[in-house]
Amino acid sequence: MAFIDLNSDVGESFGNWKMGDDAAIFTSVSSANVACGFHAGDPSTIAQTCRDAVSANVTIGAHVGYRDLAGFGRRFLDCSATELADDVLYQLGALQALARAAGSEIKYVKPHGALYNTIVHHQVHAQAVIDAIKAFGADLPVLLLPGSVALQKAEAAGLRGVAEAFADRNYTPEGTLVSRRESNAVLHDPAQVTENMVRLATEGTIVAVDGSTIKMEAESICLHGDTAGAVAMASAVRAGLEHAGVQIRSFA
Amino acid sequence: MAFIDLNSDVGESFGNWKMGDDAAIFTSVSSANVACGFHAGDPSTIAQTCRDAVSANVTIGAHVGYRDLAGFGRRFLDCSATELADDVLYQLGALQALARAAGSEIKYVKPHGALYNTIVHHQVHAQAVIDAIKAFGADLPVLLLPGSVALQKAEAAGLRGVAEAFADRNYTPEGTLVSRRESNAVLHDPAQVTENMVRLATEGTIVAVDGSTIKMEAESICLHGDTAGAVAMASAVRAGLEHAGVQIRSFA
Amino acid sequence: MAFIDLNSDVGESFGNWKMGDDAAIFTSVSSANVACGFHAGDPSTIAQTCRDAVSANVTIGAHVGYRDLAGFGRRFLDCSATELADDVLYQLGALQALARAAGSEIKYVKPHGALYNTIVHHQVHAQAVIDAIKAFGADLPVLLLPGSVALQKAEAAGLRGVAEAFADRNYTPEGTLVSRRESNAVLHDPAQVTENMVRLATEGTIVAVDGSTIKMEAESICLHGDTAGAVAMASAVRAGLEHAGVQIRSFA
Amino acid sequence: MAFIDLNSDVGESFGNWKMGDDAAIFTSVSSANVACGFHAGDPSTIAQTCRDAVSANVTIGAHVGYRDLAGFGRRFLDCSATELADDVLYQLGALQALARAAGSEIKYVKPHGALYNTIVHHQVHAQAVIDAIKAFGADLPVLLLPGSVALQKAEAAGLRGVAEAFADRNYTPEGTLVSRRESNAVLHDPAQVTENMVRLATEGTIVAVDGSTIKMEAESICLHGDTAGAVAMASAVRAGLEHAGVQIRSFA
Repeated sequence: MAFIDLNSDVGESFGNWKMGDDAAIFTSVSSANVACGFHAGDPSTIAQTCRDAVSANVTIGAHVGYRDLAGFGRRFLDCSATELADDVLYQLGALQALARAAGSEIKYVKPHGALYNTIVHHQVHAQAVIDAIKAFGADLPVLLLPGSVALQKAEAAGLRGVAEAFADRNYTPEGTLVSRRESNAVLHDPAQVTENMVRLATEGTIVAVDGSTIKMEAESICLHGDTAGAVAMASAVRAGLEHAGVQIRSFA
Repeated sequence: MAFIDLNSDVGESFGNWKMGDDAAIFTSVSSANVACGFHAGDPSTIAQTCRDAVSANVTIGAHVGYRDLAGFGRRFLDCSATELADDVLYQLGALQALARAAGSEIKYVKPHGALYNTIVHHQVHAQAVIDAIKAFGADLPVLLLPGSVALQKAEAAGLRGVAEAFADRNYTPEGTLVSRRESNAVLHDPAQVTENMVRLATEGTIVAVDGSTIKMEAESICLHGDTAGAVAMASAVRAGLEHAGVQIRSFA
Repeated sequence: MAFIDLNSDVGESFGNWKMGDDAAIFTSVSSANVACGFHAGDPSTIAQTCRDAVSANVTIGAHVGYRDLAGFGRRFLDCSATELADDVLYQLGALQALARAAGSEIKYVKPHGALYNTIVHHQVHAQAVIDAIKAFGADLPVLLLPGSVALQKAEAAGLRGVAEAFADRNYTPEGTLVSRRESNAVLHDPAQVTENMVRLATEGTIVAVDGSTIKMEAESICLHGDTAGAVAMASAVRAGLEHAGVQIRSFA
Repeated sequence: MAFIDLNSDVGESFGNWKMGDDAAIFTSVSSANVACGFHAGDPSTIAQTCRDAVSANVTIGAHVGYRDLAGFGRRFLDCSATELADDVLYQLGALQALARAAGSEIKYVKPHGALYNTIVHHQVHAQAVIDAIKAFGADLPVLLLPGSVALQKAEAAGLRGVAEAFADRNYTPEGTLVSRRESNAVLHDPAQVTENMVRLATEGTIVAVDGSTIKMEAESICLHGDTAGAVAMASAVRAGLEHAGVQIRSFA
């Protein structure tokens, strides 16, 4: 029987500012990337998100980012390896305490935003993230882009690197993401996205932007929950997968 | 044989701003109140401080505070019980991860600055701090002012409340601190301070501001390390205690 | 001909977090309380808000608050008079530069959230806010609660204190706000609110919670824009006032 | 008669953290680069620094930086042009209000740290800084590295670009700074530095790292005040210049 993980970002409110419909997204995913306070998520938001994840039986992952609230962690920050490793370790510890108080714990790590994109290629920052996860001591799996430098470094360090696919993104025939600068970077049709994700989960392939069928190894699918359309898309993907007999379960 | 704990605040640098002579203070104390990032202490400062504490064989405590870097945690912040408890739990987790990476762990908690002073009397904030420590799960002892509301709440919650005395502060005949608004609030003579602290450790008494000898139950003595004079004072107190045959050791 | 000012809080987004429907509220009000970055509002949000205010021909006011992004300025912060005055002056200057780049300038000041409430009675913080406005040099009018300490201090300092009424709040027969702890503190019926505000603008009276008609001197009415209901209420109040022949115009 | 400006960074304390000996440096320089709160400098520190600058008859400049207190503005932050321009404009306005309250005003701008280094070559960030200065409306001169992209853009925008030399840095025969990665990047001998700066002020030349005399056009000399040695160096340079008959005066 085929199975796959569905992950989404949650806990990204900050103080009085609300973001995303976490309650809705928890009904669709198996893994929750919980903000840790450096790009989003104040302690009370994180605590509540962890309790909600536990109630929804969703696995908690640490969504670690650059220290940049004003930029939501979406801007590259040229910090040193030491600073980055310590910043990540601090975030992991903080979330762990809140996750444990909610009756669970961190089961995986997913770098956020600019950090996620940077460590596709940035050797020093990729190593710093891996070093922090190793220093944390639990040898947590890491959710990353297939082919990224960070994925190689994770595996070199004895961590499990978990590749993910983006449900609503178009891929080139070479298996890389179509740049967001292109008009067809993002897919908007839930039916098309669902069909593609069922194919991914059952056959290990997707249809690329040129119509060709390409191989795609991914143990998790990233969904979004920041707009009403995204929540509906997430719900459709889950329903489609279940209808196709694919089991939705955490990779962790 | 008499024994007592000596504690001091450390890890209070932030980024490029340095504070205190932690290396010097580590040679005098048995317990280090390590800043957790909310009033002071960036992750790399905290990480280095934990490694230094381990090297110096000094016990690590969590110096938790209000979320107020600009005010160094010295300004009362009227946050809700939930916000405060979650803020404290977040800090405990963050420090724990960095302490463990250094080969140790948090052994006690000491509230900082305005939070320390507030929970002498503020029922709601006192309970929030205790709730956070309970939620952290390790039932850590808490270093507090004798007679404080927080001390009562700690013990009511099954936590060990540890009373401390301030080496360089004058006490009223009733055993409370002489207000900092008074000119004689602070003691500056290392010999006088040392004599008083030896008396505390060996007889459980101190000489109050009016010359009377009063009972003082304290398992720890708070020393400062933020000025050259403070570091010299700390060193003198330790030497005096050891000369008097008092063992310096953590209460934890 | 009767006239009155309508004011509302705007520019309260921060980075990726959006708050309020400023575009809609700009069609209803004559005065915009623009966040200055300490409780909400990043520089780009503020800049865009100023441009939008200018386009909508709405007067710009400085919505100054305590330095507390995590608490949205809604938590009392026990800062010193000097710290508060300098924090307010810093915010005024920052907003002024962005307002001028948009082709306008600050025309009044309205303290935000906990600061607004604190200076109803807190002598030191009230004076600090007034001192900052004086130091800014433009002798700006200040929007405040009728009867507040800050209003007295503003006038004592030669500033114009402008009293405001809250459209959607119930008042006691004594003219004070019904506490938010009471179930009837907030009014939800646009027709009732509009009728009351027309009475305020035309007769200088409102109907209090007990049905009695009381005198209320206010040159401005505070409306909200943070929910769809609030925006609809704001629109209804404006339409009702205009229909009653009341001119909507800035007090500044 | 020869003349030159001496500039140094001041106002870089933050809350309880002190940095630099501003009082000492004010006796040596003619221009003060005052931190604006984004890399360093809280409002009360800035206000006091402005008053001290006025007392010392030193010209106030705005030391604008990336929004990164934890990194002291020394880390490149990949913000957008809009974000950077608005961040700079916000800082200029904030400092202006505090400078005016002290009886002066901003007379020039000097980008700080990573921003200074980035706009030597980064077209987009260089233009954003210049756009912000233009938007501020006072057409302030900008202190920059000779040959930098920002200097070209300043002049293209009708602003006065002012080139500066670094007193304690070695230069290559081509007139660029010897990299800090080289052991001889920094000069430590006050006599040598003073001699070189007198040559700069009187002849427009300096002695490069290879002993050759090269042309160096600079209207200002940057001194440091963050260590006791730096303060002594600054004092020596000023004394040496005055002894050689060079007038120390602001370029603004």
